Amino acid sequence: MVGFGTFAQFLAKTMINRGHTLRATSRTDYTQLSKDMGVSFVSDVGALLQEDNDVIMICTSILSFSTVLGSMPLHLLRLPVLFVDVLSVKEHPRDILLKVLPERADILCTHPMFGPESGKYGWKDLNFMYERVRIRGKETCSSFLQIFEMEGCRMLEMSCTNHDSLAAKSQFITHVIGRTLSEMEIESTPIDTKGFETLVQLRKNTEKNSYDLFNGLYKHNKFAKQELKNIELALEKVKQKLQKNDEE
Amino acid sequence: MVGFGTFAQFLAKTMINRGHTLRATSRTDYTQLSKDMGVSFVSDVGALLQEDNDVIMICTSILSFSTVLGSMPLHLLRLPVLFVDVLSVKEHPRDILLKVLPERADILCTHPMFGPESGKYGWKDLNFMYERVRIRGKETCSSFLQIFEMEGCRMLEMSCTNHDSLAAKSQFITHVIGRTLSEMEIESTPIDTKGFETLVQLRKNTEKNSYDLFNGLYKHNKFAKQELKNIELALEKVKQKLQKNDEE
Ligand SMILES: NC(=O)c1ccc[n+]([C@@H]2O[C@H](COP(=O)([O-])OP(=O)(O)OC[C@H]3O[C@@H](n4cnc5c(N)ncnc54)[C@H](OP(=O)(O)O)[C@@H]3O)[C@@H](O)[C@H]2O)c1
Ligand SMILES: NC(=O)c1ccc[n+]([C@@H]2O[C@H](COP(=O)([O-])OP(=O)(O)OC[C@H]3O[C@@H](n4cnc5c(N)ncnc54)[C@H](OP(=O)(O)O)[C@@H]3O)[C@@H](O)[C@H]2O)c1
Repeated sequence: MVGFGTFAQFLAKTMINRGHTLRATSRTDYTQLSKDMGVSFVSDVGALLQEDNDVIMICTSILSFSTVLGSMPLHLLRLPVLFVDVLSVKEHPRDILLKVLPERADILCTHPMFGPESGKYGWKDLNFMYERVRIRGKETCSSFLQIFEMEGCRMLEMSCTNHDSLAAKSQFITHVIGRTLSEMEIESTPIDTKGFETLVQLRKNTEKNSYDLFNGLYKHNKFAKQELKNIELALEKVKQKLQKNDEE
Repeated sequence: MVGFGTFAQFLAKTMINRGHTLRATSRTDYTQLSKDMGVSFVSDVGALLQEDNDVIMICTSILSFSTVLGSMPLHLLRLPVLFVDVLSVKEHPRDILLKVLPERADILCTHPMFGPESGKYGWKDLNFMYERVRIRGKETCSSFLQIFEMEGCRMLEMSCTNHDSLAAKSQFITHVIGRTLSEMEIESTPIDTKGFETLVQLRKNTEKNSYDLFNGLYKHNKFAKQELKNIELALEKVKQKLQKNDEE
């Protein structure tokens, strides 16, 4: 695992429980935390690439993905190997991986559509999107996907482009609403309706994600800008309708 | 009950089950539906006022409340009697009831903070707000409140002003977000996150309420305008922050 932040640790916990061997590297030194989890931490990414890895999972933030990939000493890579990324946008890592990786490195782009909150009690029935971008080592790829299949995820094979288009219309909108409620500092009142309770929960869950993640969803999904416009337009229409009726 | 629409019928179902005797009148003829429920329907509001009622519950829309009260032949009223309203805004009906009702009519302003969706499986732990605006017949008032107490509602006594201020910051915001999502026509995708699923549900629940209700929440709650501005401002800030980071 390259990048061992919140989400990588969350994935690692289940993978370790299922008997997989994990090595991790990250900008921050997670030596102690990794040890406690049963993951070996390697500070130097070059040293990690030289190990006998079946899979190299990139779990860095969307914003740093390009820099992290660019600074990897890829000539040290032991081939063949399968590169997997778990970024919440998909065209962006696909393009970069195709550009920088040697031909003999396979590429699987994935998006586990859940996190430490929604996956707190297991991954059953949660969505796992993936595209086999460049796969020659079919077995390694299948074994990797099986990790999620066996946890009961709904496996969804689709193109990175299709993912980005759908995710802008669903996940990105959710984050925009969550960040807006956060900006408003909405709080429980003594007279909450059930609907409002779900919004307070949405605010809380959104704030648990890093701002980098939200920023990445916007910056590196080409469909996001239009969705942000759509939200603004829709709110404007709702307002105008209210004001028009108010004048009558 | 004066006004026998969706919400009045929803309340009536439980009250009838608990053995109360109900009479209803409404703009629309609900004779058959009332009969099926065990409620006697009286087309003429004057005839209803002349009956021996303990309580007269006003369940009309917020927008029509003033008109409906204004067109009641209040000289036919049998006094003393307790007027209760269930509107989702509270200063507005309080002011009108105090203005038009005779001195010997008591006034209890209430807002059951739930409806056919959230109260589908009972009213337990759901919020019931009320203010004893003018109560001399303490027993009748207590008996009425007991209907909700016995169903397990969280009884919240507070001023109508306090209610409107809190409801603008919670319920009204929820309706604005719900109507905005509705305007955008958001739909489930194959890759929904849990957070997005709650927004799709919010859209659906919002659309189950009449537009009149939403309109009333805005028009007759003096705190609502500011909250609408707050939502706009918050969304604008979220947008500017994204755009600023995008330029960097
Ligand atoms: N959270 C979720 O629910 C979720 C769900 C699905 C997919 N994802 C994806 O998983 C990835 C990780 O997400 P996250 O929740 O852990 O938070 P994040 O803020 O998106 O990413 C944090 C990770 O990025 C690394 N990083 C950030 N800036 C860096 C830089 N300039 N140079 C090198 N490394 C840098 C961090 O390293 P250090 O920790 O060493 O500082 C950490 O490993 C993201 O791509 C996200 O889109 C997240
Ligand atoms: N729905 C909820 O979850 C909920 C929860 C708490 C409180 N409330 C409050 O309960 C009241 C009723 O709500 P609702 O959900 O049933 O929908 P609504 O659209 O707010 O009100 C419908 C009721 O208003 C009557 N009405 C509308 N326009 C009228 C007019 N011009 N003249 C006479 N009567 C008119 C309707 O009569 P006809 O049916 O005869 O046409 C019907 O009884 C509202 O004040 C609302 O704020 C609703």
